[in-house]
Amino acid sequence: MTSDDQRRPIAVTMGDPAGVGPEVTARAWAARRENDLPPFVAIGDIAAIEAVWDGPVARVGDMDEVGKAFDTALPVWHLEDSGPLTPGQPTPAGATCALHALETGIGLTRNQASSALVTGSVSKFALHGIGYTHPGQTEFIAERCGVTATNAVMVLAGPALRVVPLTVHIPLSEVPDRLTSELIVAKARIVARGLRRDFGIETPRLALAGLNPHAGENGQLGSEEGRIMAPAIAQLAADGIIVDGPVAADALFAPGIRDQYDALLCGYHDQALAPFKALHFHDGVNLTLGLPIIRTSPDHGTAFNIAGTGRADPGPTIAAIAMAARMATARERNCAPAK
Amino acid sequence: MTSDDQRRPIAVTMGDPAGVGPEVTARAWAARRENDLPPFVAIGDIAAIEAVWDGPVARVGDMDEVGKAFDTALPVWHLEDSGPLTPGQPTPAGATCALHALETGIGLTRNQASSALVTGSVSKFALHGIGYTHPGQTEFIAERCGVTATNAVMVLAGPALRVVPLTVHIPLSEVPDRLTSELIVAKARIVARGLRRDFGIETPRLALAGLNPHAGENGQLGSEEGRIMAPAIAQLAADGIIVDGPVAADALFAPGIRDQYDALLCGYHDQALAPFKALHFHDGVNLTLGLPIIRTSPDHGTAFNIAGTGRADPGPTIAAIAMAARMATARERNCAPAK
Repeated sequence: MTSDDQRRPIAVTMGDPAGVGPEVTARAWAARRENDLPPFVAIGDIAAIEAVWDGPVARVGDMDEVGKAFDTALPVWHLEDSGPLTPGQPTPAGATCALHALETGIGLTRNQASSALVTGSVSKFALHGIGYTHPGQTEFIAERCGVTATNAVMVLAGPALRVVPLTVHIPLSEVPDRLTSELIVAKARIVARGLRRDFGIETPRLALAGLNPHAGENGQLGSEEGRIMAPAIAQLAADGIIVDGPVAADALFAPGIRDQYDALLCGYHDQALAPFKALHFHDGVNLTLGLPIIRTSPDHGTAFNIAGTGRADPGPTIAAIAMAARMATARERNCAPAK
Repeated sequence: MTSDDQRRPIAVTMGDPAGVGPEVTARAWAARRENDLPPFVAIGDIAAIEAVWDGPVARVGDMDEVGKAFDTALPVWHLEDSGPLTPGQPTPAGATCALHALETGIGLTRNQASSALVTGSVSKFALHGIGYTHPGQTEFIAERCGVTATNAVMVLAGPALRVVPLTVHIPLSEVPDRLTSELIVAKARIVARGLRRDFGIETPRLALAGLNPHAGENGQLGSEEGRIMAPAIAQLAADGIIVDGPVAADALFAPGIRDQYDALLCGYHDQALAPFKALHFHDGVNLTLGLPIIRTSPDHGTAFNIAGTGRADPGPTIAAIAMAARMATARERNCAPAK
């Protein structure tokens, strides 16, 4: 990290103002020293913070002010009054504020005023109510970055493992048809490049989980391993990207096996996320590779049911900010122009 | 447990004599005191034990001898000479011995000479080579017990959770069609009854994992939750069996959620086994509910690649014997005729 980059703060969107986003962002700031967090700014409605937290807040209107304020107060980039606020009760005005915070965070990071984007949790239901048509935040971020959604690859990362769901929000019955060799190759390339660029892993070690029980048991329990996966692995090997497998999914997540890899490529949402959350419920980070910006997110939802009660765990937000900072450092190092 | 039952030993089949079964059985005996294991007898070829272990062995020909011998030597019920033995190299004679050990163990347990059956790992490939046609040991045991294979329900159990794959060794693409309301109801009933009878859990708390991401997100990501699972849950509730769900599979395995349940019902093999093995690789027990006998098994294969090297972990075998003993005690208590 150059000293210049070190001063660029991280942009943290608060997400839905009625969710747990404001409070976990504030409590991440309160825990900044013990977690060695770099300066960050909370983007959204300042009233959403003040409704659930009585610590010091510094309203900023310029990213240069963030570093100075950060030591003694939570810097907040106030966007708009999102109206009467009751934690746990999403409103159209709140969803609008969450969307504006996302747009602002993307813009600040795209133009390099911030070094990375950390996105708080939004309510898809509330966003769809105000006319938002993307399935989640990632697709919106990809579009604003000029990247097709299929090239924005979701990764869940924790201290013990990184997992990549190669297909995400589709019915399980559609997975066998959607999981093509082309898709595996395209996503594995993005993952390998992202691990090099944003994690500084020179030669990433990847494994691909089988789709069927026991990875198909030599074709006796399904043909996708031989028909779809083996050709993809061969193609990737020809490109210099080593992917082991297909490995039986239940063996792959066992300690001693999972530890051998920098990322586990999984065929579908739950194959990746169920073991991941079993191990990393409190410190899982959701991040997106394949974007021109660094983007991470705490791996949980708006948790409307506990918003405002003080019970929300700031751990995932702290982990997301810390990981974004490490990724920004790695990318700066790997992408710095030669002198 | 009655004092009478306490004296009935557990039957432990060694599995394939060229696999790790003989050595982990012997090492479980060596660790009997610190693990408070009840008397058990190893069934198979005594030469397979002697080839990999130099501890004391007592050849027994009657189950009454087991209790007396157990304190000072590993009791072995020698069946037959399985020919020249090289650890890691399965042979037809070895597969035959493994099958005879399984038959003997079932017979001893069926006629109550032993209180429970613990089965060592076999090679399906070697067994199929001698004309065995069952997919695994469970189906064979079910048949010998007069139970249809679909009513013998596989459960993986460890200290943190129990999981039940409702479908097992079928391609993933067939899961959506095979997972019917009838199947869910039938297996949940067996699980609820088994938890009461063999684990002493008066009112078992069960949860059913959704098939699709986010449990289908109200039908937007798949219809099986509403079409197949909700009616099954309603039917079970009418029978007095409470099953929560369908719960998003990635949430279900998180600590704090999984802890609320006595068993998690999963739609398919990897949904159950990948998170399970992520948490319980060293102490997972595979057990079968719905049988007239108690049957457990260490949750690993023959591990031919490390057989004879002393590297095999006896932990799963110790856990399988200890769990069989606890289940035998619970069943004895719950099924004892009223005095």
